[in-house]
Amino acid sequence: MEKTIAAISTAVSVSGIGIVRISGEESMDVISRIYRSKGGKKDIRKAASHTIHYGYIYDGEELVDEVLVMIMKAPRTFTGEDTVEIDCHGGVYAMNRVLETVLKNGAKIAEPGEFTKRAFLNGRLDLSQAEAVMDVIQAKNQSALNCSMSQLKGSVKKVITQIRSELIYHIAYIESALDDPEHISLDGYPEQLLKVVKIQEKKMDHLIATASDGKMIREGIRTVILGKPNAGKSSMLNLLTGENRAIVTDIAGTTRDVLEEYINLHGITLKMADTAGIRQTEDVVEKIGVGKAKELAKDADLILYVVDSSTPLDENDHEIMKMLEGKKAIVLYNKTDLDPAVTTEDIRALVSHPVIPVSAKEETGIGELEEQIRKLFFQGEITFNDQVYITNARHKEALTDALASLKMVEQSIIDDMPEDFFSIDLMSAYESLGRIIGESVGEDLVNEIFSKFCMGK
Amino acid sequence: MEKTIAAISTAVSVSGIGIVRISGEESMDVISRIYRSKGGKKDIRKAASHTIHYGYIYDGEELVDEVLVMIMKAPRTFTGEDTVEIDCHGGVYAMNRVLETVLKNGAKIAEPGEFTKRAFLNGRLDLSQAEAVMDVIQAKNQSALNCSMSQLKGSVKKVITQIRSELIYHIAYIESALDDPEHISLDGYPEQLLKVVKIQEKKMDHLIATASDGKMIREGIRTVILGKPNAGKSSMLNLLTGENRAIVTDIAGTTRDVLEEYINLHGITLKMADTAGIRQTEDVVEKIGVGKAKELAKDADLILYVVDSSTPLDENDHEIMKMLEGKKAIVLYNKTDLDPAVTTEDIRALVSHPVIPVSAKEETGIGELEEQIRKLFFQGEITFNDQVYITNARHKEALTDALASLKMVEQSIIDDMPEDFFSIDLMSAYESLGRIIGESVGEDLVNEIFSKFCMGK
Repeated sequence: MEKTIAAISTAVSVSGIGIVRISGEESMDVISRIYRSKGGKKDIRKAASHTIHYGYIYDGEELVDEVLVMIMKAPRTFTGEDTVEIDCHGGVYAMNRVLETVLKNGAKIAEPGEFTKRAFLNGRLDLSQAEAVMDVIQAKNQSALNCSMSQLKGSVKKVITQIRSELIYHIAYIESALDDPEHISLDGYPEQLLKVVKIQEKKMDHLIATASDGKMIREGIRTVILGKPNAGKSSMLNLLTGENRAIVTDIAGTTRDVLEEYINLHGITLKMADTAGIRQTEDVVEKIGVGKAKELAKDADLILYVVDSSTPLDENDHEIMKMLEGKKAIVLYNKTDLDPAVTTEDIRALVSHPVIPVSAKEETGIGELEEQIRKLFFQGEITFNDQVYITNARHKEALTDALASLKMVEQSIIDDMPEDFFSIDLMSAYESLGRIIGESVGEDLVNEIFSKFCMGK
Repeated sequence: MEKTIAAISTAVSVSGIGIVRISGEESMDVISRIYRSKGGKKDIRKAASHTIHYGYIYDGEELVDEVLVMIMKAPRTFTGEDTVEIDCHGGVYAMNRVLETVLKNGAKIAEPGEFTKRAFLNGRLDLSQAEAVMDVIQAKNQSALNCSMSQLKGSVKKVITQIRSELIYHIAYIESALDDPEHISLDGYPEQLLKVVKIQEKKMDHLIATASDGKMIREGIRTVILGKPNAGKSSMLNLLTGENRAIVTDIAGTTRDVLEEYINLHGITLKMADTAGIRQTEDVVEKIGVGKAKELAKDADLILYVVDSSTPLDENDHEIMKMLEGKKAIVLYNKTDLDPAVTTEDIRALVSHPVIPVSAKEETGIGELEEQIRKLFFQGEITFNDQVYITNARHKEALTDALASLKMVEQSIIDDMPEDFFSIDLMSAYESLGRIIGESVGEDLVNEIFSKFCMGK
């Protein structure tokens, strides 16, 4: 029997409410030892599942906290085990004290990710869904959240399971035919298998191709703003940041520092090197030459080049334009509220990148910028209804391995090899895909994956 | 009708679970607009009170998060209003997105402390209990937690209400007698009232006297460690810190920085100026003279004077001993594992403070130090069963005002003044006490008190 585990599942800093979560067979015993209802008579073990109980947590005779206790009984819980959530006061000492009391009364401290690991081990989630839990938590924008929620609901699991069931059918067919050649014929079968393999390869190719979009959806588009001094880089940044902060700053009391390096444009996240890095790029062209700017530009997924439309182009602008070659870039034709010294046509004559008139001062042009970024990176629309995105490097690797195995099947067919060659590589592809959903993965890998989780999840 | 309010009630940083709380008459409408059960058929408005529901939050057709929804119906809730708690994924974006969806569907963002303010305004808590909520959250040790929990359960309310009911009885009696002198006689009444006033004064005196203990329980004992170079101040500090950290560092993943300036000794908190400050006191006597040390010692509630027992006392020690005069101090006779060059008797001959043999190296003596601190500050024991501590400066002020008014009643009686003089000052005492429990307080004060709360509480 697995030990009953407990941890603080909310963030541990001064706040209104904290949650201590308990999961395992002894959860109800643990809570019954430390919970007292207001009248003192209620037996919490007899509570119905999915009910909420007001009362107190006692450590022996010492009153620890006033709480709400959430009773959820197996199997209809996240972990699949009996689960208790204690809603306590969100003080650092209070939360730790409640946890300590729980630990003294029969639970052991959970490892990071252990609740989700149990959900996986108990078959409540496959591995791709379990991994999506952390992705939901770490999502920095709407697209990342959509993507992870879709995976959490099983989109990756579904498509991988479909491919695997095709493969296993053919593995079984070949094996049966080899075992029983008198009744099952493999005449003409290689041609048929080749078609199937090519279809599955195409599906996998497509999934792998989503991974770079997936990575940008999940982690943001690495972006750098370039421009000569006084082109308006700072105010551009402030303008973009303003957009981003809407959701955060409209709501007082939310953490300020977590999202600081990210700018959200309705579902697209621009990941700025970091704020300090961006400030350093100010006047970088003039003051420290193009070296630093080149370096930043080289690593970026996207360059935003801010042009001051009210002053003529000069050597600095030409230097920057050179850096844009071969990169995804957007020219922000800034200060459209002033008299122009350079036209958009002048710029379009020099670079092939999209040019967008903007005014940081008048706050215009952001919508079009957003559209252009969408076009450059996501073929116009990020949709999640029919599109499965691969966002996890581990999944991409497994798909790449599986694809390589299918290519070997293809080659074996072309080379007219014996059929058991096909099934060996088909099985290898099947197993590679199994790693994504958590079949055919060793305990070590499972432990490694969940160790990256945060406490209490 | 008060608007329905909502806020993130957990700390907003990456964690397993976050809670978005909704309170108000429209809570059930708000949640019904955005919640979908797994099958999609459940009408959450019809859910029984104190039940938990698994499902999804949707913003229109966009899936926002997978959640548990806690339904709690008025009046058996913290605020006394219909309340919904949404247990969502503890991601910064995810929590904000859920909150945003709630706000788009009929709730307004709660002000800091607004949930507790509503609990107060709806009569679920008096003001002293409401203030205890924040004290529970901010408690840094067991005594502070005990103290706040006792206040939250109404201990201050109870004692204040008792005194007030005595006072109002006599106010009413005097008023009746003055109105109806033919039937109610005031002969001999002043002597009787004098006794009552003296008893109530004594109670209030006693409560006021607990305030300095209360402050130390709540905020910690301002402590400074003094000693000449190499006496072992650093290792003493590390030893104390080790004790303190037990509860925090045994539990991985808890916040490290919040308690950094506090050292907990089983229920007593030593508040070190700050860690930087303590480090600065190292070698302070030798290097920068006694000025800095004197300044630190002057502000401290407690001085821990570390003596190196293996080296003879010198001028530095005599300087420090002078600083201890008139202060609460404990001499830590350190390095008892080495051959002594000075005995505890030598020190006791020079100072009247308790001397405790300790060995930072062998980690002995901490228990006795804890005992001594308890004796010095809390008359040996901190008990909460029968003892009400005043921990709130606002309460102390109100008590002091009330006591002054009673003193005036006393003086009026002694001076043989007319009875209506008594009732004016009795009423004034009654009203001062009313400020503690939240009667006779203006809206401004209520707003000011709750504005100090954290978000979501």
